[in-house]
Amino acid sequence: MRMAALERLLVIGGDAAGMSAASQARRRRGPDDLEILVVERGHHVSYSACGIPYHVGGVVDDADSLIARTPAEFRDRDIEVRLRAEAVEIDVSGGRVRVRDLEDGTERWEPYDDLMVATGAVPARPRLPGADAEGVHGVQVLDDGITLRRIIDREAPRRAVVVGGGYIGLEMAEALVRRGLEVSLVDAADQPMRTLDPDMGALVADALRGVGVDLHLGEPVEGFDTSAGGRVTAVRTAGRTLPADLVVLGLGVRPGADLARAAGIETGPTGGIVTDRRMRTRTERVWAAGDCVETRHLVSGGPVAIALGTHANKQGRVAGINLGGGYATFPGVVGTAVSKICRVEVARTGLNEREAADAGFDALAVVVESTTRAGYYPGATPMRTKLIAERRSGRLLGGQIVGEENAAKRVDALAVALWNGMTVEEMTGLDLGYAPPFAPVWDPVLIAARKAAEAVERDMSKA
Amino acid sequence: MRMAALERLLVIGGDAAGMSAASQARRRRGPDDLEILVVERGHHVSYSACGIPYHVGGVVDDADSLIARTPAEFRDRDIEVRLRAEAVEIDVSGGRVRVRDLEDGTERWEPYDDLMVATGAVPARPRLPGADAEGVHGVQVLDDGITLRRIIDREAPRRAVVVGGGYIGLEMAEALVRRGLEVSLVDAADQPMRTLDPDMGALVADALRGVGVDLHLGEPVEGFDTSAGGRVTAVRTAGRTLPADLVVLGLGVRPGADLARAAGIETGPTGGIVTDRRMRTRTERVWAAGDCVETRHLVSGGPVAIALGTHANKQGRVAGINLGGGYATFPGVVGTAVSKICRVEVARTGLNEREAADAGFDALAVVVESTTRAGYYPGATPMRTKLIAERRSGRLLGGQIVGEENAAKRVDALAVALWNGMTVEEMTGLDLGYAPPFAPVWDPVLIAARKAAEAVERDMSKA
Repeated sequence: MRMAALERLLVIGGDAAGMSAASQARRRRGPDDLEILVVERGHHVSYSACGIPYHVGGVVDDADSLIARTPAEFRDRDIEVRLRAEAVEIDVSGGRVRVRDLEDGTERWEPYDDLMVATGAVPARPRLPGADAEGVHGVQVLDDGITLRRIIDREAPRRAVVVGGGYIGLEMAEALVRRGLEVSLVDAADQPMRTLDPDMGALVADALRGVGVDLHLGEPVEGFDTSAGGRVTAVRTAGRTLPADLVVLGLGVRPGADLARAAGIETGPTGGIVTDRRMRTRTERVWAAGDCVETRHLVSGGPVAIALGTHANKQGRVAGINLGGGYATFPGVVGTAVSKICRVEVARTGLNEREAADAGFDALAVVVESTTRAGYYPGATPMRTKLIAERRSGRLLGGQIVGEENAAKRVDALAVALWNGMTVEEMTGLDLGYAPPFAPVWDPVLIAARKAAEAVERDMSKA
Repeated sequence: MRMAALERLLVIGGDAAGMSAASQARRRRGPDDLEILVVERGHHVSYSACGIPYHVGGVVDDADSLIARTPAEFRDRDIEVRLRAEAVEIDVSGGRVRVRDLEDGTERWEPYDDLMVATGAVPARPRLPGADAEGVHGVQVLDDGITLRRIIDREAPRRAVVVGGGYIGLEMAEALVRRGLEVSLVDAADQPMRTLDPDMGALVADALRGVGVDLHLGEPVEGFDTSAGGRVTAVRTAGRTLPADLVVLGLGVRPGADLARAAGIETGPTGGIVTDRRMRTRTERVWAAGDCVETRHLVSGGPVAIALGTHANKQGRVAGINLGGGYATFPGVVGTAVSKICRVEVARTGLNEREAADAGFDALAVVVESTTRAGYYPGATPMRTKLIAERRSGRLLGGQIVGEENAAKRVDALAVALWNGMTVEEMTGLDLGYAPPFAPVWDPVLIAARKAAEAVERDMSKA
C-alpha cells in the first residue's frame, strides 16, 4: 500500500474559476492524494453571474437554474465547500490563509500546500454622496440578483436609473424595462458600450431608445439624493435630477486582487494578479484564475483584465489540470464579447479603433451593411460589420458586428482569424458556411474582409 | 490620346463564376481597353441556384428575387450578355469559340484574347429505363425551378418521389412537403447526406421522417415506370414500386468540363478543369472558375470538385481580378457546407471519418451533446457537435454539427480553425463569444475541442 503524503489545495472563491480548478485537480488526483477545500464568502458556488440580468428581468424565473452545481454535488466528489467563509489574509511564507466565518465572526488559519486565488472582480462604486444609500444596487454576485428581483417583486418600484452603459448596465436596463419600470440610463461617455466604436455604439443607443429607455449620455453622475430615511430618491447629473425608486450600478469592475496584493503576490498594470500561461502567480505554489487576474491580449500584446465567465472557466480548468499534475496553458484572449440588448445583437473582438491606436497600430477600418440571410430568404435582417486592419500588413486587428437575430455569433469566425494572425486578404478566401437560410452568397464577414483588403491595397498604392 | 489595343474577354456561362469574373475584370479595365462578351445558354444570368428549392417550396414566391442582376444591368456596365447562346466548341489554337443561338439554331465563331470557362456543373442522370420520361425533373438551373414550380401550381400533383439524399434532394423533399405533396425519398446509400458520418446523418433522417417524408434508404433505383403517353408513373427499386406523379432527381452533379476537355484543356482526377491558384488553366489565356473546376482540399491536400455558389463567386472574382491585371488567389477549400432541412440545421467542414481514412489520416472522433444557448435561457435547443482529429498531432481534420436554430453557422469557427491548421488542444483556448442568449459558458465548439484534446492525450498515453 502506497502512503502518499496528503497535500492540501485551498481555493479562495467558489465560482467559475475556483470550482473549475477544484474539479480538474480532483479529476487527476484522488482524495487520498489531495485534499481540496473551497472557501466562498457568498451563499452560492458555481453559478452563472452572466445570467443575473435574465433572472431580474424575468426571462429566467428560477434563480436555482443559474446554479450549475451545489456544494453538496462538490462534496460528493470530495471537494469540501465552506460557504459564508471569507479569506481575509494570505500568509504566503506560512502557507496559510486566515478565514472568517461570516455567520459567527470567528476566524481561523487554514493551511495549504497549493493556493488557488479566484477572488473574482470588484464592482466600481462611485465615491459620491449617497452612493451607499439603500436602493442603490450593484449586480455582481448571485445574491445581488436575488435581492434585486425580490425588491422588484415586492415593492413594485416605478422608476429606475441605471448608472453606466457597459454590458451589465445595458442588460439591466433591458431587464428593468421588461419588468415594467420606467428606466433612465446615465453614462459619462458619449455612447453606450464603449468597447464598440462610436459608429457601432450608436446602433445600440437606438435600440435602447426603441424600447423606451431614456438615455442621458455624456453626463457624469454627481450624486444621489436620499430621503430622510436614507433611501435613494434621485440621481443627479450636471444637467438634471432623475427621480429614482431604484438605482442599479453598472460601472464596470476591476480585478479583486486586494487580498493577493496585500500578501505580496504580484499584480500588474491592470491591477490584476500576474500569472504565467499555466496560471501560476509569481509566488511559489500560489495560482490564480478568473476575474482577479490579468492576461495577455493576443492582438495588442499587452496585459488586459477582462471579467468574463468563459475566461474564468478556461483559466480555472487550466490551473486545475496543472495542479493535478497535467499540462495545460491559457495563452491569452482576443477580446471577444457578445451581448443581446433588446432585439439587437452586439459583438466585438480584437481591438476597436481607439484601442488599436493606443496599442501603436496604424489601422484602417471598413464598415459593411449586409443581411444575416440571403436577401430573398424570409427573416433576413440587416447587420453591420466593421473590420479594423493594420495598414500595409493587412493584419486583422478587430471586428464589430451589430445586427438582429443570427448576427452576433458570426464574430467567432473573426475571433479565430485573429487568434491565428490572419490578414484580411487571406480571410477573403475563407470557406464559411453558405446556404440561403444562413447567409448571403457572400457572407458579411467575407464582404467585410474583401472591402478591408481593397482598402489596404488602395492605401498602399497611395503611399 | 492613348490608343490601347482593344482586347476581348469571352466568358462562357453567365452565373456566379462567369459574371463575377466579368464584373471584376471590368472594374479594373475600362471598355476602351477590354471588350467583354458573356454567352449563356439559359434565360437568366447571375441568379442564386441555391435558392431554387425555396422558390419551388413557396418560401420565396418571386423567382425574380433569386436574380441578383439582369443582363441589362450588366450591359450598363459595358458587359455584353447574350442569352440562349450555347458555346459548342472551343478552338484554343485559333482563339475562338463556336456559339450556337438556341433560338434560331445559327452558329458563329466568336474570337477571344482571354477565355473564361464557367460552364458550371452537370446533374447526374441515371442511365435507367424511363429516366428521361416526362415528369422526371432535374433542378440544376433556374429554368428548371421555374418549370417545376409552375407544374406544381397548375397540375397539383399528389405524390412525389425524390431520388437522391444529398443537399438538393433533401431540400427539394422539404419543399415538396411544404407544397402539400406526399413525398418519398429513395437513396442507394444507407443514410441521407453522405457528406456526414452515419451517426450525424441519422439525425437528418429523423428530421425528414418527422415532417412525413417516407424514406427508403439502401435502395438503388432500378427504373421508372411510364404511362402510354410517356409520363412517369412510378419509381422502381429492388424492394418496391413507389407511385409518382412527379419525380425529382437529386443525385448530385459533376463538373461540366466536357466542352473544355474536348478542346484539350486539362482536367483532373475529379473530372474538373485544372487551374492554378490564380484560376488559370494549363492552356494559355484560358481561365476557369466555378462548378466546372477542381480545387485543392486544404485538409486532405487532394483535388476536389465541390459545386457551391460561394466557391464559384470567389473563384470568379479571383479570375476577374487577375484578368484585370491585379493579383488574387484562391488557395482551396476546407469542405464547408451548411443546410437547413425542416427544423434541423446541418453543417460540416473538413473531412468526415471516411474521408479522413481515405486521405490516409489515422483519426479519432468525439461527439458532444450540448445546447445552442445557456441551458437556462429560453429557446436553448440541443445540438450535437462532432470533431475529428488526427492521432498524435491532434490536428483538427473536420467537424459536423446537427442541431436546431443557431446551430449550423457555428461551423464557421471550425472552418477558420481548419484553414489555419489548428490542433484541437490549441482550440480549447479559443476566445469565442459568450453570453447566455448565444451559448453555454462552455461553447459547444470548445467542449468538443476539449473532449477531442483529451481523447488525443489518452490515445497517446496508451501507445
